[in-house]
This record gives sequence, structure tokens and C-alpha cells, in this order.
Amino acid sequence: MRPAADRGRVWQELEQLATFSDATPPAVTRIVFTEHDRRAREFFRSRCEAAGLAVRADAVGNTFARWQGTSPDLPAVATGSHIDAIPNAGRFDGTVGVFGGLEAVRALQAAGVRPRRSIDVIMFTSEEPTRFGLGCLGSRLLAGSIDATVGQTLRGAEGLTLDEARQAAGFSGSLDNVRLGAGAYAAFVELHIEQGPLLERAGDDIGIVTAIAAPASVRVFIEGQGGHAGAVLMPDRHDAFLAASEIALALEDAVRTLGSIDTVGTVGVCDVFPGAINSIPSRVRIEIDLRDVDEERRNRVWRHAEQAGALVAARRGVTVRSVIINMDPPATCAAAIVHAVSAACAARALQHQRMISRAYHDSLFMARVAPTGMIFIPCRDGVSHRPDEYADPDAIARGVEVLADTLATLAGEAS
Amino acid sequence: MRPAADRGRVWQELEQLATFSDATPPAVTRIVFTEHDRRAREFFRSRCEAAGLAVRADAVGNTFARWQGTSPDLPAVATGSHIDAIPNAGRFDGTVGVFGGLEAVRALQAAGVRPRRSIDVIMFTSEEPTRFGLGCLGSRLLAGSIDATVGQTLRGAEGLTLDEARQAAGFSGSLDNVRLGAGAYAAFVELHIEQGPLLERAGDDIGIVTAIAAPASVRVFIEGQGGHAGAVLMPDRHDAFLAASEIALALEDAVRTLGSIDTVGTVGVCDVFPGAINSIPSRVRIEIDLRDVDEERRNRVWRHAEQAGALVAARRGVTVRSVIINMDPPATCAAAIVHAVSAACAARALQHQRMISRAYHDSLFMARVAPTGMIFIPCRDGVSHRPDEYADPDAIARGVEVLADTLATLAGEAS
Repeated sequence: MRPAADRGRVWQELEQLATFSDATPPAVTRIVFTEHDRRAREFFRSRCEAAGLAVRADAVGNTFARWQGTSPDLPAVATGSHIDAIPNAGRFDGTVGVFGGLEAVRALQAAGVRPRRSIDVIMFTSEEPTRFGLGCLGSRLLAGSIDATVGQTLRGAEGLTLDEARQAAGFSGSLDNVRLGAGAYAAFVELHIEQGPLLERAGDDIGIVTAIAAPASVRVFIEGQGGHAGAVLMPDRHDAFLAASEIALALEDAVRTLGSIDTVGTVGVCDVFPGAINSIPSRVRIEIDLRDVDEERRNRVWRHAEQAGALVAARRGVTVRSVIINMDPPATCAAAIVHAVSAACAARALQHQRMISRAYHDSLFMARVAPTGMIFIPCRDGVSHRPDEYADPDAIARGVEVLADTLATLAGEAS
Repeated sequence: MRPAADRGRVWQELEQLATFSDATPPAVTRIVFTEHDRRAREFFRSRCEAAGLAVRADAVGNTFARWQGTSPDLPAVATGSHIDAIPNAGRFDGTVGVFGGLEAVRALQAAGVRPRRSIDVIMFTSEEPTRFGLGCLGSRLLAGSIDATVGQTLRGAEGLTLDEARQAAGFSGSLDNVRLGAGAYAAFVELHIEQGPLLERAGDDIGIVTAIAAPASVRVFIEGQGGHAGAVLMPDRHDAFLAASEIALALEDAVRTLGSIDTVGTVGVCDVFPGAINSIPSRVRIEIDLRDVDEERRNRVWRHAEQAGALVAARRGVTVRSVIINMDPPATCAAAIVHAVSAACAARALQHQRMISRAYHDSLFMARVAPTGMIFIPCRDGVSHRPDEYADPDAIARGVEVLADTLATLAGEAS
């Protein structure tokens, strides 16, 4: 019997999950370690326990729901994603990989599969950088790409450090213990919406990810000179906001002239101080997101933007200081997993294509400690990080079933 | 006996006033109708009452402290300014004209002057636009340049309308009653720091204002399309922040190319939505401050910036909508007051110059209902709207004494 997803069940779970939100529906805002995050975590845990999985959480709140295999001493295989959502986001980014992962396990259970390796459904903590400024907190710690010092050095805008916030949310113990041992997992596969338009345009059901683009995040602090907007003459000004505007446009220009179609750069945050209509901005902070499948090309774009910033600084008499939050390499997906996903698509006669992931995911870091792959499903108009983000229930079910087949292959059948 | 300011008294009052603040010293933040504004108002009232003045407040909180003249039925003369302070401001903007006005009255009392006309010291409500987006709220209502409907239409970012906020602060009654009757004042004179560097550079003690530049405030709403910063390709973007950056730079360019040295334009506010590093800005609001002594030239600069915005909108596929908050004409100071101030400077052998006020003040609106003048004193480096704003105690005392002489001239001596 071939595993079959219960389309209505996973849809209903995603709907209920969307109610744990600080935004007005259909928008979802779910920031890590808030009350709604806590409730969403409880909801996930209860559903996993109802499916007979053993649930544990680590010191940063990464949550592991294990379906024990017949050879529990072998390295397990894992799937999963995240449930946190940026301000004013949608209902499917990350969540499809968490509840879809659980649904894949339930589908395997219902089909009578008895896996040799245990299968973990992982809910990673804070894939989004909203609160602590650094994305993939949980998976970075699992992969050892950051260490326990971030507990003290990362601080949310509301004032708490990561350590204070996680402890208040009930996750204690040392962050040193989060890192996975060598060979902890035999494989990791993440189900996710594409967050781009390519599958929908091609009429494909499944995207098989071969690589994940290399992300970078940079905070740029511009310091000029404030003053009264009526009284300081134009030649005497050192306006931090006008400098920030030029830097943002220089970044766009560098991406378009030096990059390929795969290069994207964004200024998503601009905080102006003091922020009064009749006051010349004295300080501005902008936050830059820059990605490319080609790491060297991405770095070249960044260096160019940085040089443009230095020219702006000299011309306007302001100071520009850049703080690199992360500048990660890309990841290549494991051939064996790409092959297993392809075989599942073929067996189910699903239209599919190989593609790269422009967005980064927890898989970018899991790829450092385990053979990793990703399964994409289409989302309407390629829209993500917006309230109108949408994935069809049938598309989700197809993704779950391909994931279930893939997990079965990777975990092996009990003899 | 010539009126003499008590330098230490007015300085000590300004120091104490600065403690009613929501910012860390030396910065001052005092937003209208907050708890610190309430305490500052009480402090002013108590000091006026200690000087024997009769204090009343109108429905918007404009406060009038009257020293009764020997002919109380004649139109009074008035002085005054404001005590509200924008976020992260200094201690002297406005406050010098309020407590300096009171000190001028006390100096006249101590000198045994018996004025024919009554003298009012006015504390105007919300000269700064911080809370309700419109500057000179109190003086605009006094002059009838806005009407009572603003009580419902103006709303602070925290959600209350002007009516709700003023009533919560204890100012009830209809805003219709704020407007001054025709001929209510025979003259109005405002003492203020220059907020520019010209007096200091020239080594002058006093600036005699002949005109006040025409201010304009415009809110610009830019609406583009959001999306995932990693997934939406550059050619598919409609980034509201990049459009806002271009508009800000186009405004600067229009001011510099079409304006004179007297033309200034500023973008002091930029709010980005949703404001996440990995999300393309879908909506941005910027706020523009534009001023000139030449009203027609100012309007030409604005039209040019507006056209540039339309071009940006068309090229980037975003919408740009402008809402004019105010676009006021300039004011000319009354010759009789300019003459009275000049005579006071001459009698005291103070260095002085005639100048225009680039910043606007409550005088801009009082000029519509009474002959109006302004007295400027130097401030260090011309700095204002910043924590390091500073006026020397001696400079303040000289300004108070010139104001006292001027008020005495305008009020007339009892025979």
C-alpha cells in the first residue's frame, strides 16, 4: 500500500496553527518565544504525541518528534522546518514542512511501513531573523556554525538576550548541548513552498532542490549630523537618510550590473533617528539582504556596494559602518536524496523539475552535518512573506506523499 | 530704573523644566499631553502665579498668564512661545520664549513699571508637529487658520484624536472657542533662540526678525509590492523603499537646483512596512518639510519634486500619493515692533542685525491676528532640535531685557 496524505487533516492543522498569531487574519505574525509561538509549539507537540511520537526539545527550543525505527541505534533520518513567521507574513512558509513532515510520518504509519531507521520530525527555532537579527538560529546551533556565545551577544529589539528569552520560554540548559554529534542523522529532507513562481509557471507539482543560494545579511549604520529642518542650510548638512538612500540605490545598481538573474539584494529595514518631520536625520540604520547561488559573485556585489557607501560617506560628510551579520556559503544537495525524490515523483507520475532554492532554509545548515535535500511545492504567484501567500491543499498533499516515499527510501524498510 | 533680568532665576527654571522629559539627559523629549507635558504646564502655571499673574487655559491648552495693566479694557500685548520638544531635542527651543517671557514681566515688575495695557505670557500648545502631524496647533487655532474639525481629524500615532488627547489632559470645551476675537491683542512679540549660526558668526547679541519663512509639510505614501527578499527576482520587483529613496534624493536635487540659499527641504521620517530584513518593502511613508522665504519658489520646488515622484512611480511600478499637511504663506513682521526692538538694542548698546526666521514659530500664525515681531538670541553653533542645543545664560538675559523694553514700549506706561 502506497502512503497517502490525509489532505484535510494537514490543512486543518495549518489553519489552526495560523490562529496563533499577532497579526489580523489572513496575515500571520509569529515571533519566536512570544506567547503565540509558545501556543503553536504546544499544538505541534500535542499532534506529534497523538501520532505516537516521542517529543523532546533542546536548549534553544528545537523540537524533535521521533518515530522509532526497528533499528533505533542506526543514525536516524529527519525532516522538518520552522513555524515562526515574520511580521505580516502568510500561513505556509515553514509550517508546511513541519506539519507536512508529521503528516508524512502518519501516512507511512497508516500504510503499515516499518522503517529501519528512526524518523525525526524537527521543528527548528527561529528560522526567521526577526527577533534576534540572525536567521536559522536553531539549525545554525545544531550544525555548530555558531556557538553558545550567541546566547549573550544576540539581543532582540525588546531588550532580552537570546538566553534570557529562551529561558523565559522554558528552554534552559547550555546552548553548547544543542550541537549535533557527528553522524547524528543519515539524511535530512525539508518540504517547503517554493516562494517563487517557477513551478506554477511550468505547471509542475514538485521542485527537486539541487542547491541553496548563499545568503548574506549586513547591518549598515550611517551617522551624520542632525539639526532643525528649517534652520540648517543645505550646504551645511550631513543628512544620514539621504546617504542611506544613496547606499540603497547603489546596492540595487551593483546587483543589477554585476549580478546574474540569480543575484538579489534588498534593503528591508530603515530606521531613522530622531524620526521627526522637522529634524534632519542624524542616524540611520539599514539592513541589507544579499543572496546568490555563486558565493564569489555575491561577495563581489557586496564589496562594490561597500565601496559605493564609502564614496557616499566622503561626499556627504557622514560615517558609514557595516556590520556583517552572516555571510554564509551555499549548500549542495546530496545526490542520493535528489535521486530518491526523483524516483518518488516518477513513481507517482508527478510533473517535476530540478531547481535551486533562492531563499535559504534550515537545510542550508543541516547540509553541513547530514546529506540534505529539499522538496518544493508550488505557491500561488510565487508569493511569500505576505498575507496572501497560498499553497493549494492538493499541492501540499502531493508534497507530503513525495516526502513520505523519500523518507521511507532513506530510512529503509524493516526486513 | 531699567528692567534687569534675573539671569540665575530664569536659568534655574529652564533647568528644572528640562527634567520633565521622556529622554535621557541632556536630551529632552516632551510630547504634548503626556505626563511630562502636564507636569511642565503645572510648573509654568505655579511660577506665573508666584509672580502675581492670572492664569487661564483655553480648550486646546494654550495657557495665558496675564499681568493686568492700568487700562485693562485696552487690547493687551502678548509674548510667549512653546514648551513641547520633539524626540531627542534640547532645552532651549521654545522654552526660552516662555520662561523668558515670564522673566521679562518680572523684570518690569521689579523695575516698577506700571503698563497701561495688560501683558500676557502665552504658552502655546504643540508648536511641534510630533504628535498630531501638524505644527503650531495652538496658534493656528488662535488665528483661525484651522477650525474645530481638527479635533476629530488629527490623530496621534498612539491612536487618540486631538479631542480625546486634550480632554484626557483636562482641556475640555469646544475648540471653536479657541479663536481669538478681532483685535484681541495690540501686539505679539516672541523671544526665541536663532536655531541657526548667523548671530554667533557675526558676534551679535540680538536678531531682529523681519519675516518668517513659509513652511510646508507633506506626507508621501508609496505603495509597491512586497515579497520574499530571497525569492523575488530583481526585474519582478516593485520596491517601495527604493522608490522612496529616489524621491528623497529628487527633493534634495530640486531644492538645490531650483531654490536659493533660503530654500531648505528635508525628509525627516521614513517608515518602512513590513520592515523585516528578508522582506521586500511593500509600503513606505516619508514626511517632507520644505521651506522658503519666497512662497512661490517653495511651491515650484514642491511641484518639481512631485513630478519626479510621478516618474519614479511609473518607472518602478509603484503608486505615490502625496497628502499636504500644511502649505503656509510667510509672515512679515510689524514695522512698529521691529522699530521698538531696534530701539531697545540701541539703548542697551547691544550688537544686533535684522534677519529672517527660517524656522517657523507660533509668530507665523499670531501675525495673522496681531502686529507681530520676534527677537532672536544666538545659540551655540546654530544647533537646535538636538540634545547639544545650547544658549548662554547671559545671551538669554540680554534677550529677556530687550523683550522687557519692547513690551514696555508696546504696552505703554501708565500716566
